[in-house]
Amino acid sequence: MILTVTLNAALDVTYEVDALVPRGSHRVRAVHERAGGKGVNVARVLSALGTPATVTGLAGGPTGQLVRDELRTAGLRDELVPMAGDSRRTVTVVSRDDGDATVFNQPGPHVDRAAWADFAARFARLVREAAVVVLSGSLPPGLPSDAYARLVRTAAAAGASTVLDTSGPALTAALAAGPTVVKPNTAEIADVTGHEDVVAAAEALRARGAQAVVASRGPEGLYAVTPDGAWRATPPRRLSGNPTGAGDACVAALAASLASGEPWPVRLREAVALSAAAVPCPMAGDVDRDIYDQFRTTVSVENTHASDIH
Amino acid sequence: MILTVTLNAALDVTYEVDALVPRGSHRVRAVHERAGGKGVNVARVLSALGTPATVTGLAGGPTGQLVRDELRTAGLRDELVPMAGDSRRTVTVVSRDDGDATVFNQPGPHVDRAAWADFAARFARLVREAAVVVLSGSLPPGLPSDAYARLVRTAAAAGASTVLDTSGPALTAALAAGPTVVKPNTAEIADVTGHEDVVAAAEALRARGAQAVVASRGPEGLYAVTPDGAWRATPPRRLSGNPTGAGDACVAALAASLASGEPWPVRLREAVALSAAAVPCPMAGDVDRDIYDQFRTTVSVENTHASDIH
Repeated sequence: MILTVTLNAALDVTYEVDALVPRGSHRVRAVHERAGGKGVNVARVLSALGTPATVTGLAGGPTGQLVRDELRTAGLRDELVPMAGDSRRTVTVVSRDDGDATVFNQPGPHVDRAAWADFAARFARLVREAAVVVLSGSLPPGLPSDAYARLVRTAAAAGASTVLDTSGPALTAALAAGPTVVKPNTAEIADVTGHEDVVAAAEALRARGAQAVVASRGPEGLYAVTPDGAWRATPPRRLSGNPTGAGDACVAALAASLASGEPWPVRLREAVALSAAAVPCPMAGDVDRDIYDQFRTTVSVENTHASDIH
Repeated sequence: MILTVTLNAALDVTYEVDALVPRGSHRVRAVHERAGGKGVNVARVLSALGTPATVTGLAGGPTGQLVRDELRTAGLRDELVPMAGDSRRTVTVVSRDDGDATVFNQPGPHVDRAAWADFAARFARLVREAAVVVLSGSLPPGLPSDAYARLVRTAAAAGASTVLDTSGPALTAALAAGPTVVKPNTAEIADVTGHEDVVAAAEALRARGAQAVVASRGPEGLYAVTPDGAWRATPPRRLSGNPTGAGDACVAALAASLASGEPWPVRLREAVALSAAAVPCPMAGDVDRDIYDQFRTTVSVENTHASDIH
């Protein structure tokens, strides 16, 4: 079982409008709501591929209830832990005229000590069933900055691997706990390490404790530095679209191939193919099966030396 | 008591962002939520002026519960009738850099026959306590287009006056029931009558059944055709800002002065002063007491003949 953690779960709301006009008053033509947050998206992708995934994290209030109801509708196992505040929403305004999306992210409620303690206890129980734990997204207000470090240590003690997809201080603080894989994108890795160069930055994260670093280079693919070697994985062609969905699909592929014990070149090929399959889908958590099937045989994976990648 | 009807009650949500960037991803800096819909705004203004107001209409689901909770927090009497669907939200994105507001209005859920029958029964009971009934806003999907006509007749049979603030077919269908006052703005009146000229349009609405017509001319004030004569009411100076709030405050003043039996020139002076007092407030339902006190002695009200107004 793969366990995905979403500490700042959200109700993702999409508003379809004819066209976005700043300072205008818009009639919303259609409203779509579903459970969101990066860990939920990862679980949705895993479930679509037939890999059992369990969703845990924190959710509260009437919005949290809507998140949980939708998880059940989607057939995902809901192990979210209640908290006192009302879960956040994200609102994405999509223009019907050009398909452009404009996103508004609420910050999420403050998490108190009691909710964090409840979550830690639930996590310690769930992790015993998990082969891989996915830790995705920002930390909500109120949590200690080393929250992910603590969860990585609990997972490791239970024998589970960890895939960490976060940024800033939450990423920095987690490195010393030795996550199995961290998956920053080029902006996040530069922010945390101060290195613009992806190779130097990935090596710096490894030096600080990450066992493997998979750096997302957007439409150019992935660069990975691992205990088994370094690779560059490149898609056969570029696709443009939804970058959030691509990142979450990449994590889903890394988690699934880690769980099934595939070697790194296979993990990276799967990750690039599944990322590409998410790019044309407007909603994060969805993937295009045709693109996935086509890309997983055509992604190029090359063993590299640091000097090859710039 | 003044009874305000909001058949499409909403949770009005305001998102503060640094600046609205189409196609951007925005961190929402602050979220404000309160009960909304035009009738709720009218009741809030009345309550701020010390006039007892009761809120009825339809609300359902978790969003309806938030609407009701906030009404109670605001000290408004909640007589909303439950319905099966989830009440709509409106989202207003306010840019901190320039104060500009961009509004997204959800359509509201479909109202079934059972909810409409429940509402009609509650309305028939409440209207017996009411001196004036305010009917504001659009009709939600599922209601008959003559919904307001039926409510006007029920109110008249119980001896209550009615102030109707709606547009399009909902306004057209209500005229034959003889509402005491209708308050279209210049665009709405032209749309319904086909007359660009506000005098001809107001006379046309009177000919179709409205007892009095108060046409809002935005920052230029009001034009009224009544059984007692015609008047033009003009503010001492123009203010720019929130037109929704101004319209709802205008209706609140008309309802309060109708309830207290003031003559038409006083009603119109109050309506222009209270509209002006709402214009600088970002949230509909709020009024600036200083502007109200200043304008209510300086609004000009002139008895007119049709040929004076163009």
